[in-house]
Amino acid sequence: MTDTPTTRLCRHADDRIALRGRDLVGELIGEVGFTAALFHHILGRIPSPGEVRIVDAVLVTLMEHGLTPSAIAARLVYMSSPEALQAGVAAGLLAVGGRFVGTMEGTAALLDEIVAATDGAAAARRIAEAHREARRPVPGFGHHLHRPDDPRTPKLLAVARAEGVPGAHIAALEALAQAVDAAVGKHVTVNATGAIAAVLREIGVPARLMRGFAVISRAAGLVGHIAEEQARPAAREIWRMVDRGIAYEEE
Amino acid sequence: MTDTPTTRLCRHADDRIALRGRDLVGELIGEVGFTAALFHHILGRIPSPGEVRIVDAVLVTLMEHGLTPSAIAARLVYMSSPEALQAGVAAGLLAVGGRFVGTMEGTAALLDEIVAATDGAAAARRIAEAHREARRPVPGFGHHLHRPDDPRTPKLLAVARAEGVPGAHIAALEALAQAVDAAVGKHVTVNATGAIAAVLREIGVPARLMRGFAVISRAAGLVGHIAEEQARPAAREIWRMVDRGIAYEEE
Amino acid sequence: MTDTPTTRLCRHADDRIALRGRDLVGELIGEVGFTAALFHHILGRIPSPGEVRIVDAVLVTLMEHGLTPSAIAARLVYMSSPEALQAGVAAGLLAVGGRFVGTMEGTAALLDEIVAATDGAAAARRIAEAHREARRPVPGFGHHLHRPDDPRTPKLLAVARAEGVPGAHIAALEALAQAVDAAVGKHVTVNATGAIAAVLREIGVPARLMRGFAVISRAAGLVGHIAEEQARPAAREIWRMVDRGIAYEEE
Amino acid sequence: MTDTPTTRLCRHADDRIALRGRDLVGELIGEVGFTAALFHHILGRIPSPGEVRIVDAVLVTLMEHGLTPSAIAARLVYMSSPEALQAGVAAGLLAVGGRFVGTMEGTAALLDEIVAATDGAAAARRIAEAHREARRPVPGFGHHLHRPDDPRTPKLLAVARAEGVPGAHIAALEALAQAVDAAVGKHVTVNATGAIAAVLREIGVPARLMRGFAVISRAAGLVGHIAEEQARPAAREIWRMVDRGIAYEEE
Repeated sequence: MTDTPTTRLCRHADDRIALRGRDLVGELIGEVGFTAALFHHILGRIPSPGEVRIVDAVLVTLMEHGLTPSAIAARLVYMSSPEALQAGVAAGLLAVGGRFVGTMEGTAALLDEIVAATDGAAAARRIAEAHREARRPVPGFGHHLHRPDDPRTPKLLAVARAEGVPGAHIAALEALAQAVDAAVGKHVTVNATGAIAAVLREIGVPARLMRGFAVISRAAGLVGHIAEEQARPAAREIWRMVDRGIAYEEE
Repeated sequence: MTDTPTTRLCRHADDRIALRGRDLVGELIGEVGFTAALFHHILGRIPSPGEVRIVDAVLVTLMEHGLTPSAIAARLVYMSSPEALQAGVAAGLLAVGGRFVGTMEGTAALLDEIVAATDGAAAARRIAEAHREARRPVPGFGHHLHRPDDPRTPKLLAVARAEGVPGAHIAALEALAQAVDAAVGKHVTVNATGAIAAVLREIGVPARLMRGFAVISRAAGLVGHIAEEQARPAAREIWRMVDRGIAYEEE
Repeated sequence: MTDTPTTRLCRHADDRIALRGRDLVGELIGEVGFTAALFHHILGRIPSPGEVRIVDAVLVTLMEHGLTPSAIAARLVYMSSPEALQAGVAAGLLAVGGRFVGTMEGTAALLDEIVAATDGAAAARRIAEAHREARRPVPGFGHHLHRPDDPRTPKLLAVARAEGVPGAHIAALEALAQAVDAAVGKHVTVNATGAIAAVLREIGVPARLMRGFAVISRAAGLVGHIAEEQARPAAREIWRMVDRGIAYEEE
Repeated sequence: MTDTPTTRLCRHADDRIALRGRDLVGELIGEVGFTAALFHHILGRIPSPGEVRIVDAVLVTLMEHGLTPSAIAARLVYMSSPEALQAGVAAGLLAVGGRFVGTMEGTAALLDEIVAATDGAAAARRIAEAHREARRPVPGFGHHLHRPDDPRTPKLLAVARAEGVPGAHIAALEALAQAVDAAVGKHVTVNATGAIAAVLREIGVPARLMRGFAVISRAAGLVGHIAEEQARPAAREIWRMVDRGIAYEEE
C-alpha cells in the first residue's frame, strides 16, 4: 500500500536522457524513425524493419477519414479556442472511443479465441452463429460506406504477409469472414479495423493497447484538419449548417 | 457568409479513399511511412527523405520526458476511467500548452525576425537586450534541468545539417545564442524546443503548426505511460503521494 | 436514416430565447435558481422546492474531496496552459469516470432491482451474497478513508426524508446495507455515492444521467482548485514531488 | 523552490470533511444551495442571498444557447464513446474558450479601467474610439443573432440592481455603450457576456475567474444535450449533414 511507484520509461539527468534503457541522443534521435521509437516506447523493444512497415501501414490507415465526428469536434473546438490548438486535438481524440475504434479490441479478442482453438474453423462458425442469433454485429465486420469490400483491408493484409508474419491471426480473420458470410447468407465487408486487429496481433500488440495506436494516428489526422482550418476555415459554416439543419420540436 | 465549406483532406467513395489527392490504398498505405504521410497530410506535399529524417528527429525528441505534468495527468485520468484510454491521452495533451510547448512558436517568430533582418547579428543583439531589460526569458533558452547544455540541441542541429537544409534559421539560432550569452553575461542553455523551432523552420513548417507536431509526438509518449500503467500501475501511489504531500492550511 | 435531427432544448430568435418551452428571460433568468434551471434543462420539468433541496445536497456533496486524481490533473493542466482555464477543468472532468463515479450507476441498478422484487429483503440478500462469492465489491459500499461510516450518507438520506420522498429506494439501500453486513460478517461503509444513487432515484433521475450531476458538481470544485492555483500555486511543487517520488527501474 | 504545497480547499479525516473551514455535513450539505456552496468554494465566503440570486442569473443565462460549437462537439463525442459521458461534456467545455467566453474577461478589464478613471465618460469615449480606429470590436458588444438588442442584457442588469449592488460597473457599461454607439454612428448590441462581466464585477468576481462560471454553467447545458441524445439521438444525423454538406475541393 505504500510502495514507491516506479517507471522504466525515462531516466533523465543533467546531461543525459534515456528512454527504456536507450540513450535518447545517441541511440534514438536521428537514429531511428518515429514509428520505431514509439513502438519501442510502448512495447519495450526496437521493432524489426518489417514490423515498422506494418505499424506504419496501420497508422497511415487510421489517420484520416474525412469529416468524422472526431474531425468535426476538433474543428469546432479549435475555432472556439484558437489559442489552444491542443484543445482541438484533445476534443477530437475523445471521439476515438468504444463505438468506432473499440471494435478493434473486440475483433482481437475473437481472433485470439480462434487461434487458441483446436479447430479454428469450428470456433469461427460458433462465433459467427452466436452473433447472428443475438443479432449483434461481429466486431470488425460491416461498414456504412465501404461495400461490398473495404479497399484498405486487402492492402493491410498484403503488407503484413509481405513482411513474413506468422499468419495465424490473418488466417483466423479469413476463417471468421467465411463463417460470417455463411451465417448471414451474403457477403459482409471485412472492415479496416478488423484487418488492423489481425495485423497488430501478428506482431504482438495486445488488444488493450490497440486503441493507443488509433489515438496516435488520429492525432496526426486532426492536426491536418486544424492546419486546413487555419488556411481555409470551414468550422463556422459547419456550425451554421448544423444550427439551421436541426429542427426545433415542441415538448 | 453562406459559402459551402470545403475540404481538400479526404475524398471517400465506396471503393476509394484519397488523402489530399493521393490514393490511400495505392499510394500511401504500405508505400510511405507514417511520418511522410502525416507531413503530406498537414503540409500538402510528400517530404523528401531528408525532411522525413528531420521530422522523425523532432517527433522522437518531444515524445517523452518522464513524469511531466502531461504524463501525470494522463495516468491519473486513465486510472479513473480505464474504459476510455483516449481520455487519458486527451487529458495529457491538454498540458501541451503555452507554458511549455508554446515557446517553440515564440522562438520561431524571433528566428524569422533575425533571418529577415539585413544585419542578423544586430537583430539578435536587439532581441537579447530587449528581453534582458524586460526581465523576460528568451523563448527557447534556459532549462530547469539541462544545464549548461541540453544534450538534444546539438544532435537536432546535426541531423538537420547532415540533410542539407538551407541553414538560415540555424544560423539565426546561433547568432541569438551568442547574443543571449553576451546580454546575460554567462552561458544560457539553448533548449530542445529552441532547436526544434530552428529545424522545423528550415523545412518550411510555419510557427502556428509547430505545436501540432508536439501534440502528435506527445500522444505517442502518453500511450507509453498508459501501457506502463496497465503493466505496473503507479497512478494510485502518485495520488497518495500528492494527497499526503500537500499541507492543509487554515484560511 | 435521413430524418431531420430535432431538439427540444432551445429555440432562439432575434429577440427571444426559450429553453424547453420556457422563456429564458421572462421565466428563468432571475426567476429560478441554477439548480432548478439545470434540473428543468436535463429532465424536462421545473422541480419542486423539495427536489431542488435534494439536488442541491447531491451537488454540494460531490463538488470537492481534496487532492483527488481529478483535482491534480486539473491543476497540472492549468499550470501548463493558463491561457485556457477550460482545459484544466476538462482534464479534471475526464477523471469523473467509471472507477469512481460509475459506482453510482451500479448502485442505482441494484436498488431498482430490489425495489422491483416482490421480496426486497431476499433480493438484497441474493445481491450481497452473489457479490461476496464473486469477490466483487458491492457498488456504493466501502470507502478507503471514511470508516466505519461515511459522514455524508446519513445527512443525504435525512435531507431526502425531510422533503417527503416516497422512500422505496432509500429502504432498498438500507436492506442492501443490512444484507452486505451479514454477508461480509462485519459492518461495511455505505458511501456517499451509494446514498446519492438512492436519493436521486427517489426523485426520478435515471441511472444513466447520474454521472451528469457528478460532472456538473465537480466542474465547480475544479474551478475552486484553479482559483486557488491562481492565488497560491501548488502545481509546480506537486509535479516536483511526483518527479522525485517515482523511482526509475531498469528493464 | 522546495516549499510544501498547501491547500485551503478541503480537509478530510475519517469522520469529517471541511471545505474552506466549513463542515461539509454540518454547514453545507442540505444547509446551503449549490450556488452558494460553489461561490464559497471559489471565492472563500458564503454569499448573501442577493449575491446568490445574481450568480444564479448568470449561470442560468450561460447554460444553453442551442446547437453551439460546444453542444455539437459534446454530442458527437458522446455518440462515439457513450461509455464515457464525462468525455462528451469535457469536449464541449473545450469550446468555452477565448473566442466566445473570453470576451467577458475583456469587457471586465475595460469596465475596471472606466471605474478607476477620474472621468469615466471620457475613458469610455477613449476606449470606444481606440477600438473603432483599430477596427477591433469592443468585447461585450455586438451579436450575430440578437440585434438590435440582446434580451438577456436588461434582465441581468435589472436583477443586479434589484439586489442593491454598488452600481459602478453597471454605470461603466452604460457609459461604454453610449460611447460605442457614438463612435460607430449607430446602435450596437450590448450582449449577454458584456452584461455578465458587469454584474460579476459588481459582486467582486475577478476577471480571471469569470470563465470558470461559464464553464460550470455550460457543463449543465451539455448534460442536457447528452440527456436529449440519450432520449432522441441527433448526433448521427448531424454527422451525416456535415459530411454531405462539405464539398471536396481539388488541391
